Amino acid sequence: MSSDNNRIRTITWDDPMICAQAATQMAGLDFLRAMIAGQYPPPPIAITMDFRLTEVDAGRAVFVCTPSEFHYNPIGVVHGGLISTLCDSALGCAVQTLQPQGMGYTTLELHVNLTRAVTRDTGEIRCEANVLHSGRRMATAEAKVTDAKGKLYGHATTTCLVFPIGGE
Amino acid sequence: MSSDNNRIRTITWDDPMICAQAATQMAGLDFLRAMIAGQYPPPPIAITMDFRLTEVDAGRAVFVCTPSEFHYNPIGVVHGGLISTLCDSALGCAVQTLQPQGMGYTTLELHVNLTRAVTRDTGEIRCEANVLHSGRRMATAEAKVTDAKGKLYGHATTTCLVFPIGGE
Amino acid sequence: MSSDNNRIRTITWDDPMICAQAATQMAGLDFLRAMIAGQYPPPPIAITMDFRLTEVDAGRAVFVCTPSEFHYNPIGVVHGGLISTLCDSALGCAVQTLQPQGMGYTTLELHVNLTRAVTRDTGEIRCEANVLHSGRRMATAEAKVTDAKGKLYGHATTTCLVFPIGGE
Amino acid sequence: MSSDNNRIRTITWDDPMICAQAATQMAGLDFLRAMIAGQYPPPPIAITMDFRLTEVDAGRAVFVCTPSEFHYNPIGVVHGGLISTLCDSALGCAVQTLQPQGMGYTTLELHVNLTRAVTRDTGEIRCEANVLHSGRRMATAEAKVTDAKGKLYGHATTTCLVFPIGGE
Repeated sequence: MSSDNNRIRTITWDDPMICAQAATQMAGLDFLRAMIAGQYPPPPIAITMDFRLTEVDAGRAVFVCTPSEFHYNPIGVVHGGLISTLCDSALGCAVQTLQPQGMGYTTLELHVNLTRAVTRDTGEIRCEANVLHSGRRMATAEAKVTDAKGKLYGHATTTCLVFPIGGE
Repeated sequence: MSSDNNRIRTITWDDPMICAQAATQMAGLDFLRAMIAGQYPPPPIAITMDFRLTEVDAGRAVFVCTPSEFHYNPIGVVHGGLISTLCDSALGCAVQTLQPQGMGYTTLELHVNLTRAVTRDTGEIRCEANVLHSGRRMATAEAKVTDAKGKLYGHATTTCLVFPIGGE
Repeated sequence: MSSDNNRIRTITWDDPMICAQAATQMAGLDFLRAMIAGQYPPPPIAITMDFRLTEVDAGRAVFVCTPSEFHYNPIGVVHGGLISTLCDSALGCAVQTLQPQGMGYTTLELHVNLTRAVTRDTGEIRCEANVLHSGRRMATAEAKVTDAKGKLYGHATTTCLVFPIGGE
Repeated sequence: MSSDNNRIRTITWDDPMICAQAATQMAGLDFLRAMIAGQYPPPPIAITMDFRLTEVDAGRAVFVCTPSEFHYNPIGVVHGGLISTLCDSALGCAVQTLQPQGMGYTTLELHVNLTRAVTRDTGEIRCEANVLHSGRRMATAEAKVTDAKGKLYGHATTTCLVFPIGGE
């Protein structure tokens, strides 16, 4: 799906609305498990930024990513936007795992701490998110980004609004 | 540089370390102006996510982006990570504009509020960041993301550490 | 109401539920104007921390406070909690000014940047908050804390949930 | 030290600069242990807001507080500023426990999520903070606020600058 060779990269993706439609018909955890199983294509952002969902449980979601040169910022390290995007994905999916069919969610705010520079030498990083509070109208979650040795590169929290689909 | 046609997209970029090296030899504002003038290539993340720096002044930076399908999340709208990445870029560059040669910066934390869904129908969005506090050891800035009519899609703040280059 | 002399301070306050009850019967702006006019007593927290609401308009609220020794932390300056409490008050009231009768609000999250140390020599500080987004289900606002000369001591943002009273 | 009876409360405190001076002469953990042991008086803010430090270890600090009517906001529950102040204290002290003699710290930013309303019926609440990252120039920590049954009322994170005392 991607290659760093020669600084050229070609990506393809699927219509995200097929997936978005399916998400409204299922409990959040079932939908995310179906996505991991490959029954639904990954969302375009995951292909653009080259990360993927690997684990979900009730209240928990894990994404992995191997930082590459195409994630670099102008000061010579991986852009904080990659960490932010990974955390936003993991946090949102963790919240989604606790929503029954008929309930949707949207992210109201994301707070990210960047504690250590990420480079293409960092190797695969893992972002694990866990729900802290899941209520009728809002939910919060926290995430941590670590490398293969457990070293911490960043952490984040989110507040999501939850609502009946159609009721928005 | 990118195309939504047929859901395939090919990007190319330049070695980011050339740019990163140049950044250490110039005042922040001069460096960013040279980047806008095309004397340095855009950083890879800006090509991957398809946004660009358009304006800088002392304490201010503006980025623009046209949200596309390749920015979509699994629930059918543009991923919050795009807004976060745009804000992180604009906030960091705003802080950089106030650094003399020999001073570097790194983002410690980014806080993003997502106030309205962004879709591919939103058209070009603009992220303007302004420095709020610029001190010897840290700086803060705020950013707002708006469409062509001035409608607000999100806002953000950051805390950056500033330090003598080589002294890190 | 308070005195620093001899490091002793006595405060008195009124039953906060009278005020809380009144708040549900009026538009937010009317209620806050009545509070400034002295028709309702200040809330206990404002007496405990010694700050007061001085101005409100649609989408805007201003509080003032004179930092004292009883606000000090163990490292010899005013505790960040004073700035946080002031900002939380101003941000919440700014959101409240835009709620019609029958709509309540609650703060979901507060983000505070502390940019300069506050001491008892700082003199009166002013916290002005302005709403950035006011929607059917949530609102966001930003606040700045300055001294008499306009010097910035901190800034903050909030996300509030808004909801029909009784519907919570 | 405080009483809710008849809505009157008298507090007294000690000169905070004695404590602040001592803090510069000791490792952070030693200083905080001496404070728990009563060798130094609590800081004025802890008396004003009626909370206290009860436990410290390397990278960890715990505060407790019994919410009272004098913490109330105008909408009939405990003000978010109490939770923010508690979290700011616990987060800062957790960071302080890892500073050797000669190193100071200051809070750059505080992010608080309020997940459930606190009232005077909540009983004693406990705020436990743990350091997530402790570096040469900055540290981050997270905190959770719970009641006696472990129910979550809020959570928070912080970024602190750390620096050689005298070098600020």
